[in-house]
Amino acid sequence: MTAPLADLSPADLATFLSDRQAAYAELQGKGLKLDLTRGKPSSEQLDLSNDLLHLPTGVLDRSGADVRNYGGLEGLAELREIFAELLWVEKDQVLCGGNSSLSVMHQVITFLLLWGGPGSTRPWKDEPVVKFVCPVPGYDRHFTMLADFGIEMLSVPMRDDGPDVDAVRALVEKDPAVKGMWIVPTHANPTGAVCSQDVAAELMSMPSAAPDFRIFWDNAYAFHHLTEEEAKSADALSLAVAAGNPDRPIVFASTSKITFAGAGVAVLAASKANTAWYLQHLAMASIGPDKVNHLRHVEFFKDADGLRAHMRRHRQIIAPKFQAVDAALSAELDGLGIATWSKPTGGYFVNLDVLDGTATRVVQLAKDAGISLTPAGSAFPHGQDPDDRNIRLAPTFPSLADVETAMAGVATCVALAAAEKLSSTAG
Amino acid sequence: MTAPLADLSPADLATFLSDRQAAYAELQGKGLKLDLTRGKPSSEQLDLSNDLLHLPTGVLDRSGADVRNYGGLEGLAELREIFAELLWVEKDQVLCGGNSSLSVMHQVITFLLLWGGPGSTRPWKDEPVVKFVCPVPGYDRHFTMLADFGIEMLSVPMRDDGPDVDAVRALVEKDPAVKGMWIVPTHANPTGAVCSQDVAAELMSMPSAAPDFRIFWDNAYAFHHLTEEEAKSADALSLAVAAGNPDRPIVFASTSKITFAGAGVAVLAASKANTAWYLQHLAMASIGPDKVNHLRHVEFFKDADGLRAHMRRHRQIIAPKFQAVDAALSAELDGLGIATWSKPTGGYFVNLDVLDGTATRVVQLAKDAGISLTPAGSAFPHGQDPDDRNIRLAPTFPSLADVETAMAGVATCVALAAAEKLSSTAG
Repeated sequence: MTAPLADLSPADLATFLSDRQAAYAELQGKGLKLDLTRGKPSSEQLDLSNDLLHLPTGVLDRSGADVRNYGGLEGLAELREIFAELLWVEKDQVLCGGNSSLSVMHQVITFLLLWGGPGSTRPWKDEPVVKFVCPVPGYDRHFTMLADFGIEMLSVPMRDDGPDVDAVRALVEKDPAVKGMWIVPTHANPTGAVCSQDVAAELMSMPSAAPDFRIFWDNAYAFHHLTEEEAKSADALSLAVAAGNPDRPIVFASTSKITFAGAGVAVLAASKANTAWYLQHLAMASIGPDKVNHLRHVEFFKDADGLRAHMRRHRQIIAPKFQAVDAALSAELDGLGIATWSKPTGGYFVNLDVLDGTATRVVQLAKDAGISLTPAGSAFPHGQDPDDRNIRLAPTFPSLADVETAMAGVATCVALAAAEKLSSTAG
Repeated sequence: MTAPLADLSPADLATFLSDRQAAYAELQGKGLKLDLTRGKPSSEQLDLSNDLLHLPTGVLDRSGADVRNYGGLEGLAELREIFAELLWVEKDQVLCGGNSSLSVMHQVITFLLLWGGPGSTRPWKDEPVVKFVCPVPGYDRHFTMLADFGIEMLSVPMRDDGPDVDAVRALVEKDPAVKGMWIVPTHANPTGAVCSQDVAAELMSMPSAAPDFRIFWDNAYAFHHLTEEEAKSADALSLAVAAGNPDRPIVFASTSKITFAGAGVAVLAASKANTAWYLQHLAMASIGPDKVNHLRHVEFFKDADGLRAHMRRHRQIIAPKFQAVDAALSAELDGLGIATWSKPTGGYFVNLDVLDGTATRVVQLAKDAGISLTPAGSAFPHGQDPDDRNIRLAPTFPSLADVETAMAGVATCVALAAAEKLSSTAG
């Protein structure tokens, strides 16, 4: 059946619906317990880094400092150099921290709220209102963080080449309350989009009403490619310098989905004014990061090429899972006109758009069949998808066989929910 | 010479001064380069924990969860249980985090500023002014943190059995702007005082004008004893519950001076209302702590007794250094009436009070002789010691021989500065 579902006669639609109801009943009978909710590496991926469990072999860094002791707020120089090469920046613009880049982002916003940053006329907490531009669909934790801070979120569409620049510009140019913007520039969460050089250049050069407008450049998937041809991240910091806005971007990265998700290293890269500002306040909160873990990672990667090679081993494990998602969705849904989905070249997610008004139903159907999906709407501020059509799929954690089983089930749910919806509309 | 220096005749004082000038010239000739500034463990102490470098042997916690992956915001249950036993609290009141309890303290104050906590009528940032009670001398990083937050500091004297409770009560009882108080209850930094049960009970039960008054109970040296008889920490949380102020204390501890100073585990213990409040905001900033490091520590300690036994091995290394400090000061200064110093039963510091008005001079003299000391005044808010008499000595990091050499030099500087002062006053 390849005719668009919306074009079916009432009788054919009724048949389609009852077929899918039968398929769903069978699905429920399987007693599945599968989880596609979060972007977590699988055990097999984590095993790739098990050498970390008996590293480091030494306790001194190359300057002779004991990594076991206090100090070194900016992180181990050797590790900063590896990330400087990977992110195309100067070593002294790179800081290495604890196990979570999310924590560093939270801390940077906290510091801006309490003290303001370079270019600020006052702490953000003293502004009548603070707003952030949020490309949607986007990363749910970015949005829940802003909600907790009481920061207002302004949605703009995410395109295949990054955020809709005209929409962003219209907000940033006129309103001095717009202080920040999220972006996952490479293999975006959840759409997989890669921000083009052109879009990045516009984001870095556009005028901003706020003198301290910041772009939170969360390059979480910079090195997380699913294809042999590897997408290049736009060089946000250089573009910002060239545009005369050196302090605009703050770049975040981490090894959470490179080594151990819970025990990796977070990275911040920014202008010297921003890093100095950050370290000034960080010095009140820390005597230094876990440099043993830094040295552990340096010994493990050896250099930037070591990290790149390591990522290719991840690709071998997870690329087939993404192919399985596409295959399962295609097999069930191609030609029906009720769903579109991304074919990402990297990252951790497949972005599934179902028939408008059915995403919540699909997630519920899947749940009742033992398949956990991220709640519908998660990729939007306050969890509100205005079209109720977006579903984020995270296929890395389950086994390949489980991905195949789960996605066949999800496809059934998508078709069933669409058929229900079209039937009720028709009726 | 055992007559008090102040009682000497002008001629004898002149002789004493010129003797000390000669001794100081000799000291300068030695070309020393010694550092007594910070409370850092020595390499020998760090070596005690080197088994951590090839742990953990497993990757699953006892519930079967993979410690390498995301999750478990409250920390590994096994580690929380060890600290629950050590701190005499329920496991679900204990949270284990990253490598720095200072970071957790900073975060707790940040959360209180941005959101307020249990009992708050509004976020602390919206108060006209926020004040903290600061027992002095105290921990310099506590004070610099408050200065950065713009929190006003109110000094109260530190006694041998803890803070001067009458002074604390007078501030807390009347002024609703007094929102918090620091205390290092056990083997205090820098005085070595141990807060008695009576003082602790009064701190937990005294009325407070602020409904959300918090005591930051930084029990950094809870297990860090220098004598066979081990000081018991007052049970702040139970005392607070008994007094009807369960949310008043927030207890901090860490393994920074137990295992690796830079790569240990921080601990927070508090009422269920406080831990729930903390986790609620922490969830926006983190997907979980480094559970690999948690398991590493569990495998290393095995249990609470394992930690206690480990601390006795530290004691064997550092107790002789504290004895050397006392011996050097006694040899040079006993009977002169120009200095008193603590004989701590635990912790990392010796508190040296020199002749009023000479601490800055002593630190300068020492520096010019190649002996680095913590800047005079560091143990007071804004670095201002009103009597210019307090010097914090940190003898753990250098070798025993270096401590002996450095402290003989410090004693010379103390005597010289006192003789200079008394001579100029006499003249």
